[in-house]
Amino acid sequence: MAKNAAKPSPFAPARLPALPVLDGVRLAACEAGIRYQGRTDLMVAVMDPGTVAAGVLTRSKTCSAPVVWCRRNLEHGRARALVVNSGNANAFTGAKGSEATRLTAEVLGKAAGCPSDEVYVASTGVIGEPLAAEKFTHLLDGLVATATADAFEIGARAIMTTDTYPKLATRSAEIGGVSVTINGFCKGAGMIAPDMATMLCFIFTDAAITQTALQSVLTSHVRTTFNCMTIDGDTSTSDTCLLFATGAAAKRGQPAIVAAHDPRLAAFAAALHDLLRDLAIQVAKDGEGLSKFVTIEIAGAESWEAARRIALACANSPILKAAIFGEDPNWGRVVMAIGKSGEAADRDKLSIHFGPHEVARNGERSPEYVEAVVADYMKNREIVIRADVGVGTAAATVWTCDLTHDYIAINADYRS
Amino acid sequence: MAKNAAKPSPFAPARLPALPVLDGVRLAACEAGIRYQGRTDLMVAVMDPGTVAAGVLTRSKTCSAPVVWCRRNLEHGRARALVVNSGNANAFTGAKGSEATRLTAEVLGKAAGCPSDEVYVASTGVIGEPLAAEKFTHLLDGLVATATADAFEIGARAIMTTDTYPKLATRSAEIGGVSVTINGFCKGAGMIAPDMATMLCFIFTDAAITQTALQSVLTSHVRTTFNCMTIDGDTSTSDTCLLFATGAAAKRGQPAIVAAHDPRLAAFAAALHDLLRDLAIQVAKDGEGLSKFVTIEIAGAESWEAARRIALACANSPILKAAIFGEDPNWGRVVMAIGKSGEAADRDKLSIHFGPHEVARNGERSPEYVEAVVADYMKNREIVIRADVGVGTAAATVWTCDLTHDYIAINADYRS
Repeated sequence: MAKNAAKPSPFAPARLPALPVLDGVRLAACEAGIRYQGRTDLMVAVMDPGTVAAGVLTRSKTCSAPVVWCRRNLEHGRARALVVNSGNANAFTGAKGSEATRLTAEVLGKAAGCPSDEVYVASTGVIGEPLAAEKFTHLLDGLVATATADAFEIGARAIMTTDTYPKLATRSAEIGGVSVTINGFCKGAGMIAPDMATMLCFIFTDAAITQTALQSVLTSHVRTTFNCMTIDGDTSTSDTCLLFATGAAAKRGQPAIVAAHDPRLAAFAAALHDLLRDLAIQVAKDGEGLSKFVTIEIAGAESWEAARRIALACANSPILKAAIFGEDPNWGRVVMAIGKSGEAADRDKLSIHFGPHEVARNGERSPEYVEAVVADYMKNREIVIRADVGVGTAAATVWTCDLTHDYIAINADYRS
Repeated sequence: MAKNAAKPSPFAPARLPALPVLDGVRLAACEAGIRYQGRTDLMVAVMDPGTVAAGVLTRSKTCSAPVVWCRRNLEHGRARALVVNSGNANAFTGAKGSEATRLTAEVLGKAAGCPSDEVYVASTGVIGEPLAAEKFTHLLDGLVATATADAFEIGARAIMTTDTYPKLATRSAEIGGVSVTINGFCKGAGMIAPDMATMLCFIFTDAAITQTALQSVLTSHVRTTFNCMTIDGDTSTSDTCLLFATGAAAKRGQPAIVAAHDPRLAAFAAALHDLLRDLAIQVAKDGEGLSKFVTIEIAGAESWEAARRIALACANSPILKAAIFGEDPNWGRVVMAIGKSGEAADRDKLSIHFGPHEVARNGERSPEYVEAVVADYMKNREIVIRADVGVGTAAATVWTCDLTHDYIAINADYRS
């Protein structure tokens, strides 16, 4: 673990999900000593020929060198390997950073027997420190040689930074009567406010789907899962969500899918959505220093986008998040956050619930409101805040966590 | 003081500025027991006939009843009295809230001898609690009767909530050879991210300026002062900045000013800007729980608006603010915040300074960067972060503070 490792999240799962073997994918990880000691920090996934990749990447104007690299590879979408390091984001590292990414891809390409533009790269950790790729590239050959099909948890552990548990999920779905598997893992604990992407998330499937269709399905479902989750409103330079489809299920008779709107893809899309949502919630539940997991549900908005923006204004409000940490049913701060969002809201029709308790109706405190009852509700570990803003019919849900002393402590000495 | 009073800001002034008497304005305050005990919480200002008011109010969609009241009065801009209470924001209080504001204005209008629509009202404190105006309206007569010209500090103290010191400023300027005075005071310590306004700020001048010209000058200078300051990115429901001009200087020969662009108003406008900037910085220096005052200067942007938005993205980033609290020169988080702002920035031309120390140039760490030197700079109480984003010539400055354990503690139990 990183030396700044915080105490485990109260939501750390007692047992991790067991991810099944997935035809066409092998993984391995090792200790490269990039920054952390006594833990793995370098992982490789090797995919069979014919694999295609879809991806959603950060919209940050100061994105990292690996993000630029992946964006270029996604233009053709062929994929044979993935390499991820933790401890250094290789972001804001200039020409040297691009060179480190290129070198990593080239060395791994040789080991995996593919051109370097079929190697995807991601890095997470400190921003602005040069990444000395030559200090770990000699390890890539060995990782490719020892990669196994049952190493998803090993991969998930190697990409952690301030995470207190690895985040894994698996689903299955039928396409044309053939069962396919989707395995995914991701990281993220701070600097989390995905904007068209997430921190780092890697998903693998044996389904046979063309790159275009795969990209379309991924983009559409990231929008309502990872992009509806925030820890601190801070969008990372490195957000990367990649979905690899090996196509191995074709050997078992799965009809190839070429269009995202193909009705035979519906169950797969639903399973993918469910997996992305699961991982997004796991990230929020490991928010740096959190004590509570918070769901914000906004209804009655003009559009889904407006509802999401209002929900994010609540989810990113430091003063509301501190009140939740303090178990204070301070719904006035929900009113404030709705008001500052810039989206349409009818103050005099606004209603707010904390869990099952209506606290406000028609723009004022509910006559039935009893503070002690709602204060009691705030002692729960999982808090749901619902508001109807009274101007339309659209709704959106956002997941987040509270703002605690531990968040300050973790981020006041991340590098010390 | 409020029972949740935090320890004093390290920037609390050793001596408050002495505000001179201002012809045409008298003030008074008392303990009404609205929420706090053992401190004043109700203040009144009475202005001579002929006074005009300009104002800038919150753009919150869930603004308070007093904001709605002031917005209506500002349509004509005649002003004879101001009443402010702390301890209760009278926000999100429905029809009862509007009635409380109307009743307060009516009773004070009678006491001051003016129609109720020449009485301006502001309230600050908890959101969503009904305000029982009838519990303090009987005090207004006495306040009017005892109001004095030298009571600005008394007024400033009565409007405090979690502020740890009153915020006062005075300036003078010449208009057509006649000296006029500007006195102002304001409050604000949390839920501060003014959007076309500030928390509560009241400014008085004896200058003779028409309402239209006064409004134009105020709006223009609030934009580059209060609207360039943030504590936590949370815009209040109650933001109110009112500027009252009694016109008394006309008796001393000041030529009446009817147009904002009148060159004789230039010195007044400069003095007003300086006063607003002074008060804005005083607010940031009393940010809830702060340990450091932070100035963010962004240059090389496409426009002033873009530079301000980039500066605010830095100033509102919890992860950067926590690093500053931890005295960590984590300039990678400045890169992140610039990247997430959505405004144009050229990653490969970006340069960043922490105080006098260049930490990044041309999109990567400066060759001269020595972490220990910059870490030493971070021990200062006042931190200046400068960045050039490399796409244009526009610049903006934003003032803020760090994010600390005390901010969490104050906001975790504001109401308990």
